[in-house]
Amino acid sequence: MKAYRLQGGFGLAKLAACELPAPAPGPLDVRVKVKAVSLNYRDWLMVEGHYNPKQPLPLIPCSDGAGEVEAVGPAVTRFKVGDRVMGAFAQRWLQGPPTPDALASTVGGPLDGWLAEEVVFAESGLVHVPEHLTNAEAATLPCAGVTAWSALMTHGPLLPGETVLVLGTGGVSVFALQLAKLAGATVYVTSKSDAKLARARALGADYTVNYATTPDWARDVLRRTGGRGVDHVVEVGGAGTLAQSLRAVRMGGTVSVIGVLSGRAGELDLAPVLMRKLKLQGVLVGSRAELEALARALSAHHDLRPVVDREFPFEEAPAAFEALARGEHFGKLVIRVA
Amino acid sequence: MKAYRLQGGFGLAKLAACELPAPAPGPLDVRVKVKAVSLNYRDWLMVEGHYNPKQPLPLIPCSDGAGEVEAVGPAVTRFKVGDRVMGAFAQRWLQGPPTPDALASTVGGPLDGWLAEEVVFAESGLVHVPEHLTNAEAATLPCAGVTAWSALMTHGPLLPGETVLVLGTGGVSVFALQLAKLAGATVYVTSKSDAKLARARALGADYTVNYATTPDWARDVLRRTGGRGVDHVVEVGGAGTLAQSLRAVRMGGTVSVIGVLSGRAGELDLAPVLMRKLKLQGVLVGSRAELEALARALSAHHDLRPVVDREFPFEEAPAAFEALARGEHFGKLVIRVA
Amino acid sequence: MKAYRLQGGFGLAKLAACELPAPAPGPLDVRVKVKAVSLNYRDWLMVEGHYNPKQPLPLIPCSDGAGEVEAVGPAVTRFKVGDRVMGAFAQRWLQGPPTPDALASTVGGPLDGWLAEEVVFAESGLVHVPEHLTNAEAATLPCAGVTAWSALMTHGPLLPGETVLVLGTGGVSVFALQLAKLAGATVYVTSKSDAKLARARALGADYTVNYATTPDWARDVLRRTGGRGVDHVVEVGGAGTLAQSLRAVRMGGTVSVIGVLSGRAGELDLAPVLMRKLKLQGVLVGSRAELEALARALSAHHDLRPVVDREFPFEEAPAAFEALARGEHFGKLVIRVA
Amino acid sequence: MKAYRLQGGFGLAKLAACELPAPAPGPLDVRVKVKAVSLNYRDWLMVEGHYNPKQPLPLIPCSDGAGEVEAVGPAVTRFKVGDRVMGAFAQRWLQGPPTPDALASTVGGPLDGWLAEEVVFAESGLVHVPEHLTNAEAATLPCAGVTAWSALMTHGPLLPGETVLVLGTGGVSVFALQLAKLAGATVYVTSKSDAKLARARALGADYTVNYATTPDWARDVLRRTGGRGVDHVVEVGGAGTLAQSLRAVRMGGTVSVIGVLSGRAGELDLAPVLMRKLKLQGVLVGSRAELEALARALSAHHDLRPVVDREFPFEEAPAAFEALARGEHFGKLVIRVA
Repeated sequence: MKAYRLQGGFGLAKLAACELPAPAPGPLDVRVKVKAVSLNYRDWLMVEGHYNPKQPLPLIPCSDGAGEVEAVGPAVTRFKVGDRVMGAFAQRWLQGPPTPDALASTVGGPLDGWLAEEVVFAESGLVHVPEHLTNAEAATLPCAGVTAWSALMTHGPLLPGETVLVLGTGGVSVFALQLAKLAGATVYVTSKSDAKLARARALGADYTVNYATTPDWARDVLRRTGGRGVDHVVEVGGAGTLAQSLRAVRMGGTVSVIGVLSGRAGELDLAPVLMRKLKLQGVLVGSRAELEALARALSAHHDLRPVVDREFPFEEAPAAFEALARGEHFGKLVIRVA
Repeated sequence: MKAYRLQGGFGLAKLAACELPAPAPGPLDVRVKVKAVSLNYRDWLMVEGHYNPKQPLPLIPCSDGAGEVEAVGPAVTRFKVGDRVMGAFAQRWLQGPPTPDALASTVGGPLDGWLAEEVVFAESGLVHVPEHLTNAEAATLPCAGVTAWSALMTHGPLLPGETVLVLGTGGVSVFALQLAKLAGATVYVTSKSDAKLARARALGADYTVNYATTPDWARDVLRRTGGRGVDHVVEVGGAGTLAQSLRAVRMGGTVSVIGVLSGRAGELDLAPVLMRKLKLQGVLVGSRAELEALARALSAHHDLRPVVDREFPFEEAPAAFEALARGEHFGKLVIRVA
Repeated sequence: MKAYRLQGGFGLAKLAACELPAPAPGPLDVRVKVKAVSLNYRDWLMVEGHYNPKQPLPLIPCSDGAGEVEAVGPAVTRFKVGDRVMGAFAQRWLQGPPTPDALASTVGGPLDGWLAEEVVFAESGLVHVPEHLTNAEAATLPCAGVTAWSALMTHGPLLPGETVLVLGTGGVSVFALQLAKLAGATVYVTSKSDAKLARARALGADYTVNYATTPDWARDVLRRTGGRGVDHVVEVGGAGTLAQSLRAVRMGGTVSVIGVLSGRAGELDLAPVLMRKLKLQGVLVGSRAELEALARALSAHHDLRPVVDREFPFEEAPAAFEALARGEHFGKLVIRVA
Repeated sequence: MKAYRLQGGFGLAKLAACELPAPAPGPLDVRVKVKAVSLNYRDWLMVEGHYNPKQPLPLIPCSDGAGEVEAVGPAVTRFKVGDRVMGAFAQRWLQGPPTPDALASTVGGPLDGWLAEEVVFAESGLVHVPEHLTNAEAATLPCAGVTAWSALMTHGPLLPGETVLVLGTGGVSVFALQLAKLAGATVYVTSKSDAKLARARALGADYTVNYATTPDWARDVLRRTGGRGVDHVVEVGGAGTLAQSLRAVRMGGTVSVIGVLSGRAGELDLAPVLMRKLKLQGVLVGSRAELEALARALSAHHDLRPVVDREFPFEEAPAAFEALARGEHFGKLVIRVA
């Protein structure tokens, strides 16, 4: 089978298409014919060697994918041949809070990922795809969708009528917008592109602000909330935006800090955290149970479709990474495998 | 001013229209020109002497109303003349869990209620009416609306994609249906009237079941949930329905038992509670903070309007009580005062 | 190896000592040389056929035991030969809320239990024994200890200074007393035996009441709490005591209903639940994560020892069941296996 | 009556003893003969003009005090002459999360504080003193005690067997040590003084580390927790210690950031928050309900006494501020007023 493998060093130039033997499932494993892979910023960092410079190579990248079950080990009970499945971000993180062991089982590094024609995972690390979703849509759920779900629902609760500020229009941000609307919240979105803000409004955003033309966007959010601030910020921008996020959130509110998107260099003035009783909650994707809860929510709302900005053929996977790095997309970039 | 007062004994025949001196506000009080009063089953029980046979008389009944501020005491800061307001169900229950003292301050017994042309309450016991609501709609929030909010949101969380079973189509039930949909839940509704079930579907109910023609409705709910049961039951039917509610809820799920609607005589087989790890949560309306949260949610969703089944003129208030007792309404019955 | 097996029908007379082939561990399994088994009321009901009359036979009973690892499958990583281990009550309930599948994996029915010289379990269903505990003490944790932990800690929180009423002095009750004291609570205990109440006081009970000489013990508890009632009741008595428990708990308080101890016939007057906003929480043992949390708590408090009332030799296992049925013990009954 | 008043500018030199007319209670007010005042670092910052440079003067400082009721307004029902009382930190923060309005009612700035022979507060802003506490001890609860309670109990839960790292041995830290022990936790304490660490151990600290002689104390804590880290850090040190606190806490753990003690200049590297799913929770004292819960917990544990390091006579109040600024105390500094 064909796969992309990072070998001989980091960097997109080292990501090589190659022919590998088809992986064989053990007794509790499932072999999946991959249909679609979606890219996360983490995948780009991994390929560039910025996520974990000690990651052993070779590595098949990409944490998120969906496909069709081709074969099952003799002890498998949760899936049968022909089922459509997607993968849990961390194979051993089934539910509840994460453990170091669970987080050592993330896909696309340290474990081999989905950027291949065939993959094998334990049945415990896979989840059924909601019927109404395409494979490309399903491929966007495990990391980006679950991250947004965890930020808003697991660390919630998010009540109808509460206000959520979503920074940007990348994969996690667009999911956060959609899920917050689903829960009855009022949603604010920032972007530097009026065209993207228009798309956000079409997806339900109640208020949008262009941070290029309104650099003091926190003041704008405060003004529109009557000086109170929003209940919840989904912060993906990192050090460059956090100071304003801390101003835009209400006393006692929550700022969800989304893992890897924020980069590693952010620094924070503690004063507003202290004096306004804020909660800063690190969010690092989520468990298989959270993926299942997200899938269930989508199954009940067929009009909520994950936003796939653009699809690339398998042969052009490196171009998809380049597009991700340029950051011009709205929602998710997907690689069609079969 | 004119008011209805229960005097000389219990029973609707003792509810007499009378002329009373206009109440005078103290320094922290607000005088309200009453516009609309909504009826709850509790009001009927109160008038009949079944809620609290020791309630001292005379008593102006009705816990729920809305109106316009006519005068404010010199120390009042939260309201000004002309503001539209509605009353908190328990005047001293501001937030958090209830105390016996807070529950001793409920309106319409033991404290005088809203069935009058003018009422006086401390400013701490009033809340602003959402702009887009009529007075009749606003009058339905303090008891029925807050009860539904508390059952689903305070004792929640209710996540998008979860399932809620609402029994019946009275005031609390219709609010529960609307609020559960607002939060992204899938909603099941029971009624003995196909016409009411059609109205429930028009309000967003996903599945309905006629318990007259399908007496074993719990089995129907189980079947439609793939044998799993619903996550949450809003139980207003009391002893007659609780056994089936306990079957229709999933392992580990919650049954919210709505106070006074259920009557006082219910008995319960404990076995399913024990063996399926169920939670039975008594719900007794809610605090002023919950009324404010509900008002905020409605303010963000102008398409969600409280369902007023029928309005009665002030002069025909007793007829409104009779209609309530017949139980043929869908949603709320309201008395127009001015 | 020797084991007790229920075969040919239910009833203690059908519990026969027999010689069975030593069980062989699969790749992820652990073989344990059993040292001690502790009895729960559930085990007695199981043997008598009252817990699940459809339980297939033969069955090795008893959910709770501790022992020493004798052999491990080649893929086992959590344990090594010589480790002391105890078993999770439900082998597939690892953490979080239970699922029907998890509860179908309980030990001592439907799965074979610990009343044998050797047992084999998946490594995921075992937990390390805290160093300072004897095997007999460790054997009491999986069902009785975890049930008390779940009632007080999982469905909590239990804050220092809060009040807990514990009914009786059986295994769960004595654990609940000890754990509530550990968390800084004030504890009330009931019993019909002054001698047992004296033992309860020696373990830290702040107030005790003999329900034989004070049949209206709820009034006594109310009086001692200044009329307020306790925050939490650990209810193991079932129908016979629940009415008083509902009176003894404060407005907004919690009554934990402990599964199988309460019998299946209890009926409940709903009025206090409704009118005082009570929570009735069914408790059905708990997950492996709760067993680990309990073990951790005990490891930090070497002076808290599970109370083993009496130990029986393996040869006299039926006498241990008879003692359990008589209900004269304080704490736990244990069978020494090796 | 005599009082200390900051007038004509900030700085300890501007804190002048003066004679003021005795304050007169309104209808819902209580006049208290002050017995003891305790100092918090916030009081020092307030006097120096560092807490709020715009604070209008004159101002009677100090948020925390206890005394005896001398007179009550005619509408007062919660207190009577002779009762011992202490004051809520924020007079209008009764329960639940804070609002900007509630936090605008803090005592000792913007509202006049306790450093006087007599004070007047609304009855809603006072709480009964636990019987077994001295006035000096009671005076330490409203700010320092409640801050520790809120960090551990409100944002908890803190379960028996969990681990808490307390930085330093000032007022909040010593309360955190005592309360964490009360709840069954294992407690680590840091200090640069071996003598203070010995006192911490005498109060129950399980492990202590001298950060002067062990500058990499986070590594020490990690080592002693088997590499896992503690569940909870009570962080009062601010920018100087936060980086190590973030290393010393376990994945998914909580760092409570204690308001004003930490100073305003702290900056934070976000990486560990993101990658280890940490929660940073700002803590800003707490509500009256939290003060009542703390008082209740102490009432149930007479052996837990607030630690008063040293008492100063009223005439030497400025010396008490100087001692506070030197930071050599262990626990609390108190000014005896009467």
